[in-house]
Amino acid sequence: MKKKLETLIKKVAKGEISPEQALRELEGFPFDDLGFARIDHHRLWRKGFPEIIFGQNKTSDQIIKIAQSILKAGGNLIITRINQEAYQKIKNKIKNLTYNPQARIAYCQQDEPERGKGKIAIISAGTSDIPVAEEAALTCELLGNEVDRIYDVGVAGLHRLISEMEKIRQARVIIVVAGMEGALPSVVAGLVKAPIIAVPTSIGYGASFNGLAALLAMLNSCPGGVAVVNIDNGFGAATVASLINHL
Amino acid sequence: MKKKLETLIKKVAKGEISPEQALRELEGFPFDDLGFARIDHHRLWRKGFPEIIFGQNKTSDQIIKIAQSILKAGGNLIITRINQEAYQKIKNKIKNLTYNPQARIAYCQQDEPERGKGKIAIISAGTSDIPVAEEAALTCELLGNEVDRIYDVGVAGLHRLISEMEKIRQARVIIVVAGMEGALPSVVAGLVKAPIIAVPTSIGYGASFNGLAALLAMLNSCPGGVAVVNIDNGFGAATVASLINHL
Amino acid sequence: MKKKLETLIKKVAKGEISPEQALRELEGFPFDDLGFARIDHHRLWRKGFPEIIFGQNKTSDQIIKIAQSILKAGGNLIITRINQEAYQKIKNKIKNLTYNPQARIAYCQQDEPERGKGKIAIISAGTSDIPVAEEAALTCELLGNEVDRIYDVGVAGLHRLISEMEKIRQARVIIVVAGMEGALPSVVAGLVKAPIIAVPTSIGYGASFNGLAALLAMLNSCPGGVAVVNIDNGFGAATVASLINHL
Amino acid sequence: MKKKLETLIKKVAKGEISPEQALRELEGFPFDDLGFARIDHHRLWRKGFPEIIFGQNKTSDQIIKIAQSILKAGGNLIITRINQEAYQKIKNKIKNLTYNPQARIAYCQQDEPERGKGKIAIISAGTSDIPVAEEAALTCELLGNEVDRIYDVGVAGLHRLISEMEKIRQARVIIVVAGMEGALPSVVAGLVKAPIIAVPTSIGYGASFNGLAALLAMLNSCPGGVAVVNIDNGFGAATVASLINHL
Amino acid sequence: MKKKLETLIKKVAKGEISPEQALRELEGFPFDDLGFARIDHHRLWRKGFPEIIFGQNKTSDQIIKIAQSILKAGGNLIITRINQEAYQKIKNKIKNLTYNPQARIAYCQQDEPERGKGKIAIISAGTSDIPVAEEAALTCELLGNEVDRIYDVGVAGLHRLISEMEKIRQARVIIVVAGMEGALPSVVAGLVKAPIIAVPTSIGYGASFNGLAALLAMLNSCPGGVAVVNIDNGFGAATVASLINHL
Amino acid sequence: MKKKLETLIKKVAKGEISPEQALRELEGFPFDDLGFARIDHHRLWRKGFPEIIFGQNKTSDQIIKIAQSILKAGGNLIITRINQEAYQKIKNKIKNLTYNPQARIAYCQQDEPERGKGKIAIISAGTSDIPVAEEAALTCELLGNEVDRIYDVGVAGLHRLISEMEKIRQARVIIVVAGMEGALPSVVAGLVKAPIIAVPTSIGYGASFNGLAALLAMLNSCPGGVAVVNIDNGFGAATVASLINHL
Amino acid sequence: MKKKLETLIKKVAKGEISPEQALRELEGFPFDDLGFARIDHHRLWRKGFPEIIFGQNKTSDQIIKIAQSILKAGGNLIITRINQEAYQKIKNKIKNLTYNPQARIAYCQQDEPERGKGKIAIISAGTSDIPVAEEAALTCELLGNEVDRIYDVGVAGLHRLISEMEKIRQARVIIVVAGMEGALPSVVAGLVKAPIIAVPTSIGYGASFNGLAALLAMLNSCPGGVAVVNIDNGFGAATVASLINHL
Amino acid sequence: MKKKLETLIKKVAKGEISPEQALRELEGFPFDDLGFARIDHHRLWRKGFPEIIFGQNKTSDQIIKIAQSILKAGGNLIITRINQEAYQKIKNKIKNLTYNPQARIAYCQQDEPERGKGKIAIISAGTSDIPVAEEAALTCELLGNEVDRIYDVGVAGLHRLISEMEKIRQARVIIVVAGMEGALPSVVAGLVKAPIIAVPTSIGYGASFNGLAALLAMLNSCPGGVAVVNIDNGFGAATVASLINHL
Repeated sequence: MKKKLETLIKKVAKGEISPEQALRELEGFPFDDLGFARIDHHRLWRKGFPEIIFGQNKTSDQIIKIAQSILKAGGNLIITRINQEAYQKIKNKIKNLTYNPQARIAYCQQDEPERGKGKIAIISAGTSDIPVAEEAALTCELLGNEVDRIYDVGVAGLHRLISEMEKIRQARVIIVVAGMEGALPSVVAGLVKAPIIAVPTSIGYGASFNGLAALLAMLNSCPGGVAVVNIDNGFGAATVASLINHL
Repeated sequence: MKKKLETLIKKVAKGEISPEQALRELEGFPFDDLGFARIDHHRLWRKGFPEIIFGQNKTSDQIIKIAQSILKAGGNLIITRINQEAYQKIKNKIKNLTYNPQARIAYCQQDEPERGKGKIAIISAGTSDIPVAEEAALTCELLGNEVDRIYDVGVAGLHRLISEMEKIRQARVIIVVAGMEGALPSVVAGLVKAPIIAVPTSIGYGASFNGLAALLAMLNSCPGGVAVVNIDNGFGAATVASLINHL
Repeated sequence: MKKKLETLIKKVAKGEISPEQALRELEGFPFDDLGFARIDHHRLWRKGFPEIIFGQNKTSDQIIKIAQSILKAGGNLIITRINQEAYQKIKNKIKNLTYNPQARIAYCQQDEPERGKGKIAIISAGTSDIPVAEEAALTCELLGNEVDRIYDVGVAGLHRLISEMEKIRQARVIIVVAGMEGALPSVVAGLVKAPIIAVPTSIGYGASFNGLAALLAMLNSCPGGVAVVNIDNGFGAATVASLINHL
Repeated sequence: MKKKLETLIKKVAKGEISPEQALRELEGFPFDDLGFARIDHHRLWRKGFPEIIFGQNKTSDQIIKIAQSILKAGGNLIITRINQEAYQKIKNKIKNLTYNPQARIAYCQQDEPERGKGKIAIISAGTSDIPVAEEAALTCELLGNEVDRIYDVGVAGLHRLISEMEKIRQARVIIVVAGMEGALPSVVAGLVKAPIIAVPTSIGYGASFNGLAALLAMLNSCPGGVAVVNIDNGFGAATVASLINHL
Repeated sequence: MKKKLETLIKKVAKGEISPEQALRELEGFPFDDLGFARIDHHRLWRKGFPEIIFGQNKTSDQIIKIAQSILKAGGNLIITRINQEAYQKIKNKIKNLTYNPQARIAYCQQDEPERGKGKIAIISAGTSDIPVAEEAALTCELLGNEVDRIYDVGVAGLHRLISEMEKIRQARVIIVVAGMEGALPSVVAGLVKAPIIAVPTSIGYGASFNGLAALLAMLNSCPGGVAVVNIDNGFGAATVASLINHL
Repeated sequence: MKKKLETLIKKVAKGEISPEQALRELEGFPFDDLGFARIDHHRLWRKGFPEIIFGQNKTSDQIIKIAQSILKAGGNLIITRINQEAYQKIKNKIKNLTYNPQARIAYCQQDEPERGKGKIAIISAGTSDIPVAEEAALTCELLGNEVDRIYDVGVAGLHRLISEMEKIRQARVIIVVAGMEGALPSVVAGLVKAPIIAVPTSIGYGASFNGLAALLAMLNSCPGGVAVVNIDNGFGAATVASLINHL
Repeated sequence: MKKKLETLIKKVAKGEISPEQALRELEGFPFDDLGFARIDHHRLWRKGFPEIIFGQNKTSDQIIKIAQSILKAGGNLIITRINQEAYQKIKNKIKNLTYNPQARIAYCQQDEPERGKGKIAIISAGTSDIPVAEEAALTCELLGNEVDRIYDVGVAGLHRLISEMEKIRQARVIIVVAGMEGALPSVVAGLVKAPIIAVPTSIGYGASFNGLAALLAMLNSCPGGVAVVNIDNGFGAATVASLINHL
Repeated sequence: MKKKLETLIKKVAKGEISPEQALRELEGFPFDDLGFARIDHHRLWRKGFPEIIFGQNKTSDQIIKIAQSILKAGGNLIITRINQEAYQKIKNKIKNLTYNPQARIAYCQQDEPERGKGKIAIISAGTSDIPVAEEAALTCELLGNEVDRIYDVGVAGLHRLISEMEKIRQARVIIVVAGMEGALPSVVAGLVKAPIIAVPTSIGYGASFNGLAALLAMLNSCPGGVAVVNIDNGFGAATVASLINHL
């Protein structure tokens, strides 16, 4: 949408279109009021990434209308936390929609996102943490970043982590995803210089209390250089990591 | 006390003392009712370690009377969680009492405890965890075990831990003491065969919630082979480790 | 797998196979990278028990691939937390797989595990705790231990426990499984010398908070000699107990 | 005060005093408004025990004025949770005040309380639980009950409890006071017919969370026949037990 | 079963049956070991009420076998927390089984229970609390008590409660059942002399945290004379109330 | 019902009906005892709004009977927390019942409610918070208030909120509905003079702990002028706002 | 300050002072940046009450400088949560400062606050809740409201509350302050039409968890018409009540 | 120390010193074992910032010895969480030690830290949050970053924040420090492009639960681009922000 606006302004400047035409094009700027939702088309400029639809708790109808508003404004569409069933309901109403079931993300890129400067490494402790790691990885990619996936290298077998250290050290930012005791971000943080965004997952049972154990562990991380996002919030980690990688 | 009883029975058998004399000696067996406390002189036989006085929340007077009952019965005296001030109040009433201020333990050994079979390694994550580690270490020693202290090898600098692995692998049982994110037991457990008793400490602040973070992390430890005791319970870890080391 | 490696090395030594052949056999050592999982074939040597698949939160496909990697490397296969439905999906892809529905474990032993030295007693407080107790019992057996099951001897009827004390005292290690108020480990610990691994279960309702009540009770156990694992973690208790019983 | 009222009414009936005189005597009935407090002189009739002053969080001045109002109305005075320092400040303003420092109760009986029908047994798990047990015991006595104190019989040494079962079985109601894992009420409840009022105490540390562990354990007590009061609430247990013992 | 035993002993005394016959009849006394369960036939004598089956978390098979053991021993059968579906599965295997769907209790009385001395009032705050209130009421009746049900008299409309005070004051023991803010036991306790057993329910939402709000409120009840059982534990309240009513 | 009573009394005064007829009309006043429920017909007078049926946890049968009692007494019927399925079951038994699926409210107005003095603004942070906001909005309308809906103006895009400030400032009372971090009430409270009723919602995941995060945030709101109701309690917020708007 | 601004503007209009002089007077408007604090002199206009200093966690120096900035701008000074010791340190630096030790508020009124329309009733459950009730009462008075104090009318003795209902019904808004079980707001809400602001207090012990029990109870209040502020937040309740009373 | 090592290696290369001399200089590399602590001199290289002493829970003696080891190795000394009293005890043993009482940091820079690329903005919500903000600010400066302090711009008066937006938008990274409801990071995140590190503080009371409310709010932040560190962890935020600013 940024490009669209620049083009518009240049056209007006060159007299190619009248200001009235430009304004009609810009209807719904800086936000579009659908009654139940106000689409923040201005966000990409302010925040460095576009408004993204959090699919959970929204009806298919609401998702479709918000998506159409974003696409009409020329933006890139990213819908997170959308399951197979909801995707089936909306896919016919939105052209060129791609779905990644593991990451539970549907998306449609109309515009090339600005490229990040380095790589973002996404490290997961276990196989069960992969859906959250994939939400982070795909979001990073959709926001213009190159991603390195390094999965199932939890602290139970340190040699698996150590064997990947060279790759990990090449990352400009690191996202570490772990459930259970949430120890992996601390261990990685002791070994690298890159800032680490830690994502606790709800993987575990009993005294994991749906990810609380991992969350608390990560917040108490000793080595420094670690910041934390919400439980299972692969998306949130990706937004922070992408902003950092675009600096 | 076990020895005392054997001796007594042998003396009666040989006619060296009368049964009446023996019974007078055994007054207060199997427990001694002081009104406010019932000293369990039988515990050493049943449990493999003697009744131990938990000093916190007890008045000096209560400690003195329980201690005297234990010593009179021929037992070894161990008082845990006793601070300098309380020690000053009781030391004149109890002969041969030694005090270790870091471990907050006062003790008096009248009897050689049965020796454990191997070494117990006591590993601490940080310098601040040492009081709890010392409570564990000294208790282990008082219960007849050889101890290896390996302190300040937390996950923030893995090379410190790795450089001690050879020593750690020689232990028959391992006690790992850690506060903050409580990640060290998981890392150690991934590297050794010995059973691990993990002790969370209340070291930390904010979302450590006085050791809750470390406790939950340890309970969720991935690698297996780890069991946990209460926050700051160096003593409890030592009793389990000692029982194992005497198998 | 340990045996496999020894045999291999001996064959090379005798010139029966070339080093190249040996290396081809050892492909995937010390771990096998499946992309979504890294199988830690080295674990048996390091830890005394093999890598075990935690079935919950894994897809059937992931389980099958990890299982095949373990079996191909010559290891013993243990899959925990696998329900009937998941078992039905994988049983045709893995030869000789046995399933125990009460313990929710599927397994296939290619190799005789090293025998533990004594017996492990598994004590449960109530009938409803049996699935967790069975997870512990079967895991102990699969790791080479003889097991004594003593079920439904909770503190509501002490005479049921007392009548089994002789059997319980013969165990080298004791696993006590209890939900609700979680009092049984404390009572048993007051009566025996063996180290006790306590397993809180989520059995209960209301203020049991899914096992939190039993967990806290066990962590605060008075008599000493008790260490605790996660809620419903029969498997974890078994790994600790087995390591102890192999000392 | 009940007696006072009966006497008054009889005197009016006999014409010994005028209704006006009676009313002056009854000033402040059914409650006395001191501005900051309204003394509920009617409570003894309604509840079976008089209004009792909870000393904690009240100023010495407030305590003195409420106490004087109660005494003037002819009632029995009981002040709970009052420490030495507060007692020193008020003792000169209130005649015949007795103080029990262990129970932290100050009292002055002007009237013989109605006698309960049987004995109330007060059982404590440990020596450190005695202050709460004494608060319960003394309150029971002040409300007209005979009390049997059985202290330090926690589950770590069951033989201590068993040796007192005969005495315990003679009680009409039982109060069981325990901190740490709070297992004692469950064990006692499995052995007796009397209703049990369980009092968790804040004795413990770490995962006792100031008595939460004991509270939860008692609320989840298996055997039935157990009801629970607030942490450290010896007084509350006594009011329930006394009401039962007066049935 | 108590009667059965008395009859048996009398018959032996009169020579009507031989001791051998009597012993065969008593097989499984004082408990019956079914492998997965040990039926405590001795409980009625010790506790004043028989062993009662907690149906939740038990398989139909387990319930049937325990029930048959109890019935064979001549006892009264009470199965709590058993839903329609489970009841359908067991009803053909157990003769004369009655089911109360609101109370979720199945039962079969072979023996007249000893009668309690007075009435037990069961008070509920709201309509939604009735299932828990009915569990309490029916259990009280099955244990030999006369019950007065007073439902939907919560504090939102005090006049509803006040209009029933006369009936409430006639009860010897009162059970108060309430969810949400759990205020009703405090209000009732301020108005009556009878001991009150308070039952918090999980009725509510949001910050009720499944009954935690009501539980905490009841534990902090001001007026005295209130003791509390677990959330939704109508059964537990009934056991305490019945024991009191049998004093 | 208030009107009905006034009419009745006037008719009696004019001799149009006999007192006996009037009393028959008033049967069930001030409350109607259905056995499982006591309908508080008096509430409108006392509270300013009528008894409202909380549909959750009630059977269709119970709802129908309570509704019929309210309607028969001439009152306005409001049933909250009633889902489509339950509505389908009751709609044929209750004439003129309207259902709003988003607000999950069924209602039937027989009487014009007294009008509030100003407008109530209902502000929601996100699209997913709308069901709770609609519960508040419709309840406000049913209680006689004019409502302004301002949805999806959360703090992520302040310009959306700012653009509506003029409308918001015209409200006499403001209800702010927000999940996740619950920051919106604080921001609005810094900008307006009207009292704010904040409603946390359970929208969110992970460390939102079903609305706990939003609840705590709102309780800690800095600017003053904010009071809070239970999580998802749109109805409760509406009752407070309506009472204020009728002052 | 509002008056000051009006006067200033009128003077400029009349030519009595130059715009430059007016601006000098208005220096620090709409806020005054002290480096460590930005005084929001604009708040009275926006919010209906002035910026108020929360004294806790501020140094005496910071309080003095903020106070001087407020006074210089012509505003009314209110400092809450300021103890005796802090008051002693600041009183010489601020003229005409009055201190109320029970409410822990220091204040200096330079300007008559706008009067509220009716009375605000402040009801406290117990004597110990008075400091919080007084913080509410004095704040209400300083914000221009007439206040009725009704203290110690908790649910343990309902007749004390009932006897004050006439006075309570005359209030336009009601603040109810209660600790322990926090039941009083629900009871009052069932009896009156005025909106209720409930203030939980930290009075209590054990399972009151420093006011959590009362907070949860109030959030779950059944009758409707109740909104809640933070634990011990008498000040916050007063701001809401005052805003309502000024409508 | 990095420079020291480079210099050393160059000197050896040039033959200015012998390898033996170099090695003596490097004694204690990569870590220095003091028995109670192992100083990680290698950390600067691995992590981008040196080992920093967390002063809390350490004895003065321990701090002095660790500090001397760091200084001797040529490193920069930073001691956090050190109060006035502890500083007084150590200042004579460590040359050139500067103390900042507000930030509670003592430090001694022997080496110029590598400069960060842009500015770090430190924003605090209130005056009481300044100690944590200063810990962050001073740490950032000691790690080589230029810092912009913007204090007391909480959401209660948005205009204070808005007036600083230009300065805030110039920052490359932003640290937002807030207690109470913790809303500020969300508001700032909606307005800027820079990554935000949010620091909850323990400022507040009651339902702030020592910073838990702010922590949860920040973890649930809507706008994306926000990561969180532990409560009061100004230091941790600074390490992450500095790493980012050095990218």
